Amino acid sequence: MAISTKIVNLLFGRPLATSEERAEHIGPIAGIPIFGLDALSSAAYGPEAALTLLIPLGMLGVQYIVPVSVAIVILLAIVYMSYRQTIEAYPRGGGSYTVASQNLGTGPGLLAAAALMIDYVLTASVGISAGVGALISAVPSLQPHTLELCLAVLLILTLVNMRGVHDTGVVFMIPTYLFTGTLLIVIAVGAVQTLANGGHPHPVAPMPAMPPATVAFAGWWLLLKVFSSGCTAMTGVEAVSNGVMAFRDPTQKNAKTTLTIIIALLAILLLGIALLCRAYRIVATNPDGPGYESVLSMLTRAVMGHGWFYYVTIGSVLLVLALSANTAFADFPRLTRAIAQDDYLPHVFLLRGRRLLYSWGIYVLVFLTASLLIIFGGVTDRLIPLYAIGAFTAFTLSQAGMVMHWMRQGNAPVRMFVNGLGATATGITTLVVLVAKFVDGAWITLLLITAMIVVMRAVKWHYARVNRAIDLDRPIIPADVKEPIVVVPIDRWTRITEKALSFALSMSTDIRCVHVQVGDEPDSISRDWDKEIVQPLCDAGRCIPKLEILKSPYRYVLMPVIDYVLEVEKQSRFQKICVLVPELVVTHWWENLLHNRRADLLKVLLLVRGNQRIIVINIPWYLDKRTVTPPAH
Amino acid sequence: MAISTKIVNLLFGRPLATSEERAEHIGPIAGIPIFGLDALSSAAYGPEAALTLLIPLGMLGVQYIVPVSVAIVILLAIVYMSYRQTIEAYPRGGGSYTVASQNLGTGPGLLAAAALMIDYVLTASVGISAGVGALISAVPSLQPHTLELCLAVLLILTLVNMRGVHDTGVVFMIPTYLFTGTLLIVIAVGAVQTLANGGHPHPVAPMPAMPPATVAFAGWWLLLKVFSSGCTAMTGVEAVSNGVMAFRDPTQKNAKTTLTIIIALLAILLLGIALLCRAYRIVATNPDGPGYESVLSMLTRAVMGHGWFYYVTIGSVLLVLALSANTAFADFPRLTRAIAQDDYLPHVFLLRGRRLLYSWGIYVLVFLTASLLIIFGGVTDRLIPLYAIGAFTAFTLSQAGMVMHWMRQGNAPVRMFVNGLGATATGITTLVVLVAKFVDGAWITLLLITAMIVVMRAVKWHYARVNRAIDLDRPIIPADVKEPIVVVPIDRWTRITEKALSFALSMSTDIRCVHVQVGDEPDSISRDWDKEIVQPLCDAGRCIPKLEILKSPYRYVLMPVIDYVLEVEKQSRFQKICVLVPELVVTHWWENLLHNRRADLLKVLLLVRGNQRIIVINIPWYLDKRTVTPPAH
Repeated sequence: MAISTKIVNLLFGRPLATSEERAEHIGPIAGIPIFGLDALSSAAYGPEAALTLLIPLGMLGVQYIVPVSVAIVILLAIVYMSYRQTIEAYPRGGGSYTVASQNLGTGPGLLAAAALMIDYVLTASVGISAGVGALISAVPSLQPHTLELCLAVLLILTLVNMRGVHDTGVVFMIPTYLFTGTLLIVIAVGAVQTLANGGHPHPVAPMPAMPPATVAFAGWWLLLKVFSSGCTAMTGVEAVSNGVMAFRDPTQKNAKTTLTIIIALLAILLLGIALLCRAYRIVATNPDGPGYESVLSMLTRAVMGHGWFYYVTIGSVLLVLALSANTAFADFPRLTRAIAQDDYLPHVFLLRGRRLLYSWGIYVLVFLTASLLIIFGGVTDRLIPLYAIGAFTAFTLSQAGMVMHWMRQGNAPVRMFVNGLGATATGITTLVVLVAKFVDGAWITLLLITAMIVVMRAVKWHYARVNRAIDLDRPIIPADVKEPIVVVPIDRWTRITEKALSFALSMSTDIRCVHVQVGDEPDSISRDWDKEIVQPLCDAGRCIPKLEILKSPYRYVLMPVIDYVLEVEKQSRFQKICVLVPELVVTHWWENLLHNRRADLLKVLLLVRGNQRIIVINIPWYLDKRTVTPPAH
Repeated sequence: MAISTKIVNLLFGRPLATSEERAEHIGPIAGIPIFGLDALSSAAYGPEAALTLLIPLGMLGVQYIVPVSVAIVILLAIVYMSYRQTIEAYPRGGGSYTVASQNLGTGPGLLAAAALMIDYVLTASVGISAGVGALISAVPSLQPHTLELCLAVLLILTLVNMRGVHDTGVVFMIPTYLFTGTLLIVIAVGAVQTLANGGHPHPVAPMPAMPPATVAFAGWWLLLKVFSSGCTAMTGVEAVSNGVMAFRDPTQKNAKTTLTIIIALLAILLLGIALLCRAYRIVATNPDGPGYESVLSMLTRAVMGHGWFYYVTIGSVLLVLALSANTAFADFPRLTRAIAQDDYLPHVFLLRGRRLLYSWGIYVLVFLTASLLIIFGGVTDRLIPLYAIGAFTAFTLSQAGMVMHWMRQGNAPVRMFVNGLGATATGITTLVVLVAKFVDGAWITLLLITAMIVVMRAVKWHYARVNRAIDLDRPIIPADVKEPIVVVPIDRWTRITEKALSFALSMSTDIRCVHVQVGDEPDSISRDWDKEIVQPLCDAGRCIPKLEILKSPYRYVLMPVIDYVLEVEKQSRFQKICVLVPELVVTHWWENLLHNRRADLLKVLLLVRGNQRIIVINIPWYLDKRTVTPPAH
């Protein structure tokens, strides 16, 4: 026990008391890695998802990435303004679920809840698969092991997260700043080269051969799909407003500073990547085929060459993408807890583990993420169409909720307008993404959201029903309770039997001892009954228990007892039936293998087949603990 | 429930009452397949195991198979005479375990038990692997799937056996007679051809190319190994004497007739195969290499050609070999039951399932067989060195026991001599096999036998200890029992709480309600306590329960309750402590997912950490079953 506890402490950290919670709170320096990883790392797969759709246009397609990226950054700015206001209005953490359900009602709240849950699972899946994608770009021989690598990363993440948010922040800080730093250097050097070469610099390292263009120009439909895929770059920006409470005092100011830095960095990365791709004429490669190389990998090689800097950059991209899944680990359990608090999810999500974490949220997230990775083989490009729908649905509902919030407050027309603009912009985007990506996979997300809303409503219905059934608004009725009927299953005359029978005698005068006779075996109890039990009790002037012998032709031992108890219950009208279950308790778990555990099964069967009047009393008899004998009187 | 019961009945047959047992008994016609499959099918792998060792001698090696086979058949005749006498002396079934432990004492009895258990597991494993080996000889493209085929056969066998011994006999009868019939025809035709061609007939179909001889003549050591491997052909002959009780009246006569037929057939098959192999110059092929073909397959092709008769023969060999494992399925559960009756194995082996079978014996056999097949890749040749040790150890002990049996009876010098001869012959063979095969795998068997004896002694020790602890040879002491202290864990004021508290009031006047306050959550019970509980009970002149609020900084809910109960137990000297565990019982299993099952965990923890004075009372509250309210008085 002691050693296993030590191992658990080493892996997951020592248990934390509730009063230690404050110590987990963080400032912007630690907040950017924790809440910004998802948003910032989106820069690694968002532009790539857009460029992949432009492959058929060949070199011509690269032209379109700049206007699409500008549109995305404008949308990002609108969403940023909106979320700043959410942080101000909800200092205790205003996730889309909270904001939507408080301001728009249950229906939109549940829609936001379902959308967000799916979004977090996809955040984890896409983060991991894109990180492994970066690794494969640098080491192509690993491509056949994509899925195994994804699952290994998920396992490491789980272990790290089971230690809690504070330690996690420390682990993630270095890769995040390395990622942002190296990419900013690539963009700066690339910009200088571009200006020095009149807009068309020469790549330092050779680029892959470009496939011939098969389409001459991009139609509106294609551009909508490109925009929809590119919008995955915006996922994760809501993380800060959900987690306001994790920041240290001054909480709101720290949260807003963190959000501003994250959004500014993301905008620079998106525009920088788009401009450099156009300048260096970088066309995406087919993510399913051999010779796949990610856009960031090509870009870094083109600007900086295939040296040590390339490997540092790709290393940090791998780490940050994989760790971006951490946003989901930080927020999914918080979200499920909030939903469970409103009775829409099972209450296990309310239990905080030894490290102040909502452990069950983590378990469910890990299970769902692993399932998605396995189903889609760990390929980012197949997961992208499912993504973004959830995020943008939640954005829209959250901001629509904020509009209602300001409307109720009154006197805040500017704030109402800002959130209204945000809601409109993200609402339109949601529809665009849904339509453009429907056949490619958005239908799966839609189906899942519907299913989850149904489940959440069913859970709520169940809890409401239980509460109606057990709620009691009257005082206890101090009625005299009739003596119970006590049923004692006995095998043969042992100390275990004696203990149970003695307790029965202290409870009631109506005692029925039942003995199951299997097949034609001789029963030893009939022989001992008169001598060991009836006679001494008679002499002492005590009431005499009845002995019932139950025959069992099919060799079942427990069913005859259950049937007898139910029969007794039927015949008595108002008495409680107490079934005494004598049980041998051994010291070591493996000793249980030597006993048939009938007592356990009997307890379970009585519970399942019983009713309000049947009460199970467990009389344990410990093999290695001696009884203190009461003094004779 | 009803549909699942129907499916179970369809797969495994309807449940049988104990009184239907007699209907399972059989005569020689059904007895030969059931008890003879193992012995007869040994003819398919015994000669092959011997011939495989002679491969290095090339054509020269074939000469040695006839004298070795004659030696084995002489040994077989001695063992046969011995076992006839066992059947006479033990009409209720005289397995080696019974005979050895009754006549030689506990030590030899346990040695026999361990040896037999291992032997049965190997019977099942070798039967299945050799059967699949025959299939591979006929369809070489299946060789890569050897292990999967073995496990599939094991699964089918398990299903068939779960139906019970009677149905099993019917299923196995046709393949057994087909196998014996076709092989006898091959031997007859081959004998005629040999005589017609002056001792050296020409094979009808072409034989595989023979590898060149690498050794010029066989030394004594090689011949001992050949004999040891060939002895695997004798495994299984004890099956009839173990299962005498399964025969119908006249039981002993039927059993003896069955044994005689089985032994006679086996002797003919062994000698016939040996003579034909010499006549047709058939050299074994390497069982691990490509192009493996079993000896029986080559022999049948040589005599009868590669036509339909060949496929019928190989089909019946496959079936019979696979089904020979059935001896183990019939006898292993009987053996473990006999051992468990003497308290040397866990008592689960005594439980008879719905079809009068000792189901746990079957489960354990299947598990061990599957493990062996997986470890040794389903290749017969790798399993052979482990085999035979167990069988011959059991033969020896059984016959030595019979010598003691006759010695005690007196006046049976001839019978004593017969069994003494048997014991001596098989004892020498055991030593030969152990020495010759030690490095190749017999050490594994020796190690397993030792380990099993240790385990069986430990199990016996535990049961003896429990019986000493619980046995009671005095009558009940009708002492007045002091009122118990009742502890009721409560959460908030609900109908569930009310039911528990009402029951507590009927049991004792010393009631302690405990409420665990997690973190800084406000507790609702303090608010309701005076109004809903104290006041009404006070007005009715009843005793007032105490309310204890337990703080829990680490958010554990159950540990504070356990600690409190143990503290109360420590402070009171002789009173029993009754812990009332209120529990919500839902209708559907999935509803349990919505409740945290704390009651179950509390019950288990109380049992593990409790002692003789702590009693757990489960007060179930059913969500969907209405209480009958007692009439007011």
